[in-house]
Amino acid sequence: MSTVTINPDVSQCVFEFLHAEVVDYFLEQQSSDKCSQPEVIEKLERLGHRVGESLVERTSRDSPRFRTELDAVVFICKHFWSLAFNKPIDNLKTNHQDTYVLHDYNFRLLTHMSHSEQYKDKAPLYLAFSCGLVSGALTNLGIRCQVSAEALQMPACIFQVKVLS
Amino acid sequence: MSTVTINPDVSQCVFEFLHAEVVDYFLEQQSSDKCSQPEVIEKLERLGHRVGESLVERTSRDSPRFRTELDAVVFICKHFWSLAFNKPIDNLKTNHQDTYVLHDYNFRLLTHMSHSEQYKDKAPLYLAFSCGLVSGALTNLGIRCQVSAEALQMPACIFQVKVLS
Repeated sequence: MSTVTINPDVSQCVFEFLHAEVVDYFLEQQSSDKCSQPEVIEKLERLGHRVGESLVERTSRDSPRFRTELDAVVFICKHFWSLAFNKPIDNLKTNHQDTYVLHDYNFRLLTHMSHSEQYKDKAPLYLAFSCGLVSGALTNLGIRCQVSAEALQMPACIFQVKVLS
Repeated sequence: MSTVTINPDVSQCVFEFLHAEVVDYFLEQQSSDKCSQPEVIEKLERLGHRVGESLVERTSRDSPRFRTELDAVVFICKHFWSLAFNKPIDNLKTNHQDTYVLHDYNFRLLTHMSHSEQYKDKAPLYLAFSCGLVSGALTNLGIRCQVSAEALQMPACIFQVKVLS
């Protein structure tokens, strides 16, 4: 059979759809009282953590060793984010101590949700996997951290990385 | 931040890693006696079915209407498969009645598994999601069907589509 060229815009939508269905699966578990919302978020984070660990190995295979913590975070913002979400992080801020704030103005996993305030309380469920993704990637690069996320004006969001000493 | 070019070989690995972790998650459930292997396979198929329904809508949006059942199956083998697995199906056979056999000589979701016979009994777990993917896609194109899969010499496998009247 002949080969087919794929529009790069849609080449990652299988990941997006699978992610959405996984979130839905856990939400069903929650609504049938098999687990609570914090448990759902923890499960999604753990799933993301493990995917992040694997993904960063594949992404960083051909990269030179990172000299500083900031180098590693910049790598996550550019190459890792582009691989996972088809675009780099839009803005990175740091206090040059232990906190990094990653700003994505158009976060791919939120773009298909309604942008009204009505669904904003569901946003943490759609950000949990990605928090785990970042913490798994950084942990595998030797940086122990806690990652939290917050939806601003959807689909914009920030991820806050707090490095643990 | 500057944009980053992504190697197309790795652009879909986030889906592969997520798929592998989802299978692992259900396997853990199975080993802690929360569900049996047939239930795990059913859950994975259901997840795949829903992803397939969404994915085929995205993929077929700009395609002309399919005139025959075979046209739809050929679309799945070429465009849909390329979108999901980065390559088209290698060989399609049909009895021109109700059965189609799709042969993938190097199925992407099996390439990371050991190719020895030892793990061949785990293969159905790694094929269940994709069976659902195909049945979801075809159902959404108006073709009710049952899809089963079999690993041959790993990572080669066949998907058998039986159209229901």
